[in-house]
Amino acid sequence: MKYQNKHYRSIWPNPDGSSFSVIDQTKLPHSFEVLTIKDIYEAAHAITSMQVRGAPLIGATAAYGYALGILNGVASNECYEILIKTRPTAVNLKWALDRMRDNCKNDAATSLSLAAQICDEDVEINKKIGKIGADVIKKIYEREKRVINIMTHCNTGWIATVDYGTALGAIYTAHDSGIPVHIWVSETRPRNQGALTAWELSAHGVPHSVIVDNASGILMNRGKVDIVIVGTDRVAANGDVANKIGTYMKAVCAKENNIPFYVAAPLSSIDLKTPCGDSIEIEERDTSEVLNVMGQTIYPNETAINPAFDVTPYQYITDIWTENGSFLKS
Amino acid sequence: MKYQNKHYRSIWPNPDGSSFSVIDQTKLPHSFEVLTIKDIYEAAHAITSMQVRGAPLIGATAAYGYALGILNGVASNECYEILIKTRPTAVNLKWALDRMRDNCKNDAATSLSLAAQICDEDVEINKKIGKIGADVIKKIYEREKRVINIMTHCNTGWIATVDYGTALGAIYTAHDSGIPVHIWVSETRPRNQGALTAWELSAHGVPHSVIVDNASGILMNRGKVDIVIVGTDRVAANGDVANKIGTYMKAVCAKENNIPFYVAAPLSSIDLKTPCGDSIEIEERDTSEVLNVMGQTIYPNETAINPAFDVTPYQYITDIWTENGSFLKS
Repeated sequence: MKYQNKHYRSIWPNPDGSSFSVIDQTKLPHSFEVLTIKDIYEAAHAITSMQVRGAPLIGATAAYGYALGILNGVASNECYEILIKTRPTAVNLKWALDRMRDNCKNDAATSLSLAAQICDEDVEINKKIGKIGADVIKKIYEREKRVINIMTHCNTGWIATVDYGTALGAIYTAHDSGIPVHIWVSETRPRNQGALTAWELSAHGVPHSVIVDNASGILMNRGKVDIVIVGTDRVAANGDVANKIGTYMKAVCAKENNIPFYVAAPLSSIDLKTPCGDSIEIEERDTSEVLNVMGQTIYPNETAINPAFDVTPYQYITDIWTENGSFLKS
Repeated sequence: MKYQNKHYRSIWPNPDGSSFSVIDQTKLPHSFEVLTIKDIYEAAHAITSMQVRGAPLIGATAAYGYALGILNGVASNECYEILIKTRPTAVNLKWALDRMRDNCKNDAATSLSLAAQICDEDVEINKKIGKIGADVIKKIYEREKRVINIMTHCNTGWIATVDYGTALGAIYTAHDSGIPVHIWVSETRPRNQGALTAWELSAHGVPHSVIVDNASGILMNRGKVDIVIVGTDRVAANGDVANKIGTYMKAVCAKENNIPFYVAAPLSSIDLKTPCGDSIEIEERDTSEVLNVMGQTIYPNETAINPAFDVTPYQYITDIWTENGSFLKS
């Protein structure tokens, strides 16, 4: 099914007051299916199984999951424990759960209300980040006066957040303001979140081409990339950035070719308690993600490793855009 | 079918004197199927469709294809033209065809004999390269006195050559001499030749793990890679190396992390008439290789680009091993 007319957020409460809905991202881009989540356990499962993904959306899902837990009589601390274990790298999860526990404790109405507020805030935050990023793209366009080639990685769009997107938010803002852009969409093995990005860009009418991750470097080396923009799952206090596996290689190649490399990050992704990238826990996911593709085994009887994220040291990053402006230059 | 007891080369003439056989590499690692090639057109198709692949094997297949063309009454120049068009990047193709045309012209017996000689020579060349490479690995082992982690890319083993392999030849030689090694096998999207490498290493008993290409960088950055060894499809006169897409990113990240990066190349892959990497024609293959995986569409209604190779400038390469020793340091 082709999704033409966007009128959803990626997460929303239902009128029954006791459930919320998300888009099942494991089914995209082939089919657009709404998933109704009725309790905290289903919320935890949605995060673990990556039916929802993207650091901001993980945070929002945890907030609603917490609220449903409280509504169903689960104790505040237990709600926290159930959800904090779901995925280790995105700090937005902890950020959202800390905020829920500290402000709502065992009160269901407050919990549902704060979850809704977290979602609304995320949309406004992304709009601000998008504006900052679009200004940077605009400056490149004013200098070059031609189509600006932007490379991204993984999916950082409206389905990775509550709405609008972080890195893709900047791209949408630039595109909507009339700047001609073309996006290089890396497939982002092993889970191919590039397919989500391509699907979003198609629906939004943003010109783009899909590439294998391996092709990123030569495009940079041959002058086909003006700027790289990615999202993040956690920024350490020194500016080191954990993001989807493959980000580090793009950042190193960008620096080598004098291409600016930006990270779009809500402040909720910045973890000042983590001094540097070495301290960030990197999730190791099941190796079947590497060894099987589209349900078929490419590597019979083999072993693999499958780190879901890598860390890009701050030296490779031109700047980090937050809703309050620059993080690295501040 | 699991291929346990290797007793094949990757290409051999048949007793009928009018055909030769190869292993259909599009079927590996799932099934081991021998393909009998009965005329020059089938030989050209085998190269274009990547039933045979790997620069040295492409050269050997072209040599036998030329011989069958002559045997069937096709003129020497026409044989040359039919085969030279099959794939643009691997210079071994031109090297083998030049040699066949210049030495055999329209003589069938000479053609069959020279094709066999080219194959025999390739095996000896690879053994020499393997010895040089194994000596480098041995020095690292003598310094570190632990398992040596070697990263490779694509497939450079006995099925990419006539036998033995180039980069994998060095690994086999080191392993067989008792040096403990562990190989990081990059899947090598879009065509997943990593599956061929994993299959070869399993059959040979060499410890290894499969990774997505995106994970190469962080392994280097975290001290998990002692040496990178790759093959090549063409080396320019200045030492720039064209090789499977993704090689450039590995080379840049290796240099950034002070990891030695070696290229194993028969002299037939060195093209002194090409001054530098910018002059090497890079094959653009069908975008279905990017958009579809295992026969299923991952990206419905999308466009892609699909360069099959990239160019690694000589500055990133520690050395190039040939059968006559070092190329870059000579």
